[in-house]
Amino acid sequence: MSIVVQKFGGTSVADVEKIKAVAKRVVDSKKRIDHVVVVVSALGNTTDELLELARAVSVSPPEREMDMLLATGEQVSMALLAMAIKELGQEAISMTGHQVEIVTDRWHTKAKIRHVSTERLIEELRKDRVVVVAGFQGVTGEGEITTLGRGGSDTTAVALAASLHADFCEIYTDVDGVFTADPRLVPGAHKLEEVSFLEMLEMAATGARVLQSRSVEYARNYNVPLHVRSSFHSGDGTWVRSEDDIMEKAIVSAVTHDFGEAKVTIMGVPDRPGVAARLFGDLADANVNVDMIIQNVSEGARTDISFTVSQEDLEKAKKLIGEISESIGAEGCDFDEGIAKISLVGAGMRSHPGVAAGMFKTLADNDINIEMISTSPIKISCVVRREAGEKAVRALHEHFGL
Amino acid sequence: MSIVVQKFGGTSVADVEKIKAVAKRVVDSKKRIDHVVVVVSALGNTTDELLELARAVSVSPPEREMDMLLATGEQVSMALLAMAIKELGQEAISMTGHQVEIVTDRWHTKAKIRHVSTERLIEELRKDRVVVVAGFQGVTGEGEITTLGRGGSDTTAVALAASLHADFCEIYTDVDGVFTADPRLVPGAHKLEEVSFLEMLEMAATGARVLQSRSVEYARNYNVPLHVRSSFHSGDGTWVRSEDDIMEKAIVSAVTHDFGEAKVTIMGVPDRPGVAARLFGDLADANVNVDMIIQNVSEGARTDISFTVSQEDLEKAKKLIGEISESIGAEGCDFDEGIAKISLVGAGMRSHPGVAAGMFKTLADNDINIEMISTSPIKISCVVRREAGEKAVRALHEHFGL
Repeated sequence: MSIVVQKFGGTSVADVEKIKAVAKRVVDSKKRIDHVVVVVSALGNTTDELLELARAVSVSPPEREMDMLLATGEQVSMALLAMAIKELGQEAISMTGHQVEIVTDRWHTKAKIRHVSTERLIEELRKDRVVVVAGFQGVTGEGEITTLGRGGSDTTAVALAASLHADFCEIYTDVDGVFTADPRLVPGAHKLEEVSFLEMLEMAATGARVLQSRSVEYARNYNVPLHVRSSFHSGDGTWVRSEDDIMEKAIVSAVTHDFGEAKVTIMGVPDRPGVAARLFGDLADANVNVDMIIQNVSEGARTDISFTVSQEDLEKAKKLIGEISESIGAEGCDFDEGIAKISLVGAGMRSHPGVAAGMFKTLADNDINIEMISTSPIKISCVVRREAGEKAVRALHEHFGL
Repeated sequence: MSIVVQKFGGTSVADVEKIKAVAKRVVDSKKRIDHVVVVVSALGNTTDELLELARAVSVSPPEREMDMLLATGEQVSMALLAMAIKELGQEAISMTGHQVEIVTDRWHTKAKIRHVSTERLIEELRKDRVVVVAGFQGVTGEGEITTLGRGGSDTTAVALAASLHADFCEIYTDVDGVFTADPRLVPGAHKLEEVSFLEMLEMAATGARVLQSRSVEYARNYNVPLHVRSSFHSGDGTWVRSEDDIMEKAIVSAVTHDFGEAKVTIMGVPDRPGVAARLFGDLADANVNVDMIIQNVSEGARTDISFTVSQEDLEKAKKLIGEISESIGAEGCDFDEGIAKISLVGAGMRSHPGVAAGMFKTLADNDINIEMISTSPIKISCVVRREAGEKAVRALHEHFGL
């Protein structure tokens, strides 16, 4: 008995013709697979349009009401897709997050899935129906509608695949799969056949936009193989799966970049216990994601702390950091949006110690100065000037023979 | 402790500026009234746009999925209105039909309300919040989303007012109230100060568009006074209330018209018991609303039956009527869309037998031929040629000194 969860993003259902094409694809799959569950995002730029409406009526729309508003986007697309599938003669039924019972915590606009009921879902699958589920949305135990934040539909799909013990989860998207680098930057970049969950996690965290970290984490935790593939043709995409299932481990799988971060430096921080905890605790409470953190060994009673945040969070972070700096008695702070984070990711890196050195040398050979370095067992990230970003990606892609 | 339910239609919330104006109005009301519940329709022509999308993906969209799709319209407007109210400093919360628990039967796209829970609603009102409820939608006992059909938001508002034992229910609309005739047809038509539920029912049934019969029936059954008023200014509109509460009963309150019906004639129907039951039973099963029915006394073994249906239902009715005609052995059928139904409505008519005669004479004096006549204790309707419709309305409005 095969079960597959297929997720179609907003660009795959951007208009009526595309919805019909997706319906056809789903119906074709249903002929080969016993049970198909489809997770769908909002049509094209619906979410942006709704956000714009909300901002037009309120300077800071309450998040609970934002969720009420945004959840309609997926409800529209799931209903239309169910209609289109039925039009092709295949029984189908749409279900909201509430109806499936995708139960989340109460953190509106960034809710986390606690539990997924499969009872009603399985009941519908047994009737030989395709079940179309609204992505991105859930419901609290109190019946309040929540949304899962960016990339939420991927998470919905993976969570359903995990709960249903699906064979795998297909993520249909507007690119052909996961690439060795962004093809817009590196013409020679090519599609990867497979990457491990961990590599994908590092790639997502360092700028690869094709999948969000949360859904990959979820897939890794429940060992749900992902197949990232194009919604426009039937060619294979990239499989994301457990490292154990991957035969050949590349030393470096990909070069990723993130041009959307900003560097924050807090200068003259009193060097006493608890200061960093206070700083990063407050940022976390405000839901500001901090990425690379660097604190130099302090030589006197004071030290500098640098870290990166996403440019989107910068405004929110600025105010907070100003306040914290003052209260901890720091000498000042500096915000720098002119940076690029360039990363190498590869599961084989663990056993090949020369990768970091190769990266630093390549950057040096290209006259690119490194401002921050951060590493994990399968990743090395360097912050460089924004202007050098593209050059760095191309040089590294070439140096490591990708 | 005062409770008022206010309903705002689609034209009242057609754009961001109008939503803000409605929010201001609600907040002003909240200063005078202890508890305010707002029921809101979908923004402007959202419903039509969604219908268009549905028809683009499916020739006959499944009604269950239609409800999924259409219910999003009100969810968008309720969230935006709740945001706009909160922006003005008044606490507000939006709720879907599902969340309130507006429980309906399972008849998708035309569901009827079975029961309204007030528990959660009252809980929110006690927190001094304005509760904004999505009109037009409900939920079945199984958690399936339903919609209430045309004018459904009015019904939602009245049902909530009844369940909450509200003082009254305000229906905000794009006209000033209920008029003695359609002002676009009769320049001298004027706004009525008050009409009885029964009169309003007859007016709605005979073409007055301002309120749908179902919501008036509901208001009458639970004795919820309605105040139909403009959403664009604060002047009084028309009160719709129990006849017992109305001081002065006009003989004729209004002239209404309906240009949206078609006449169906089935010729040579065998005159035997059960034929009419079969015919109208089948039409009712197909959800075709039949209005005036006329069967002449038969002189032989066969008779003609005429009735009116809405032009919208005509296509659906044609096929069915053709089949039924054949199976009951009728000689043929005829469909005529070139008709107008003109009606006089007035609670005082009961005690003034001359009204019908005055109507027929007025039409005759204007060379207007009457094709069908139907009466109730407080209404007389005549079907005339469509071309004579406007003239008939004007002549009657003048003759009865409205």
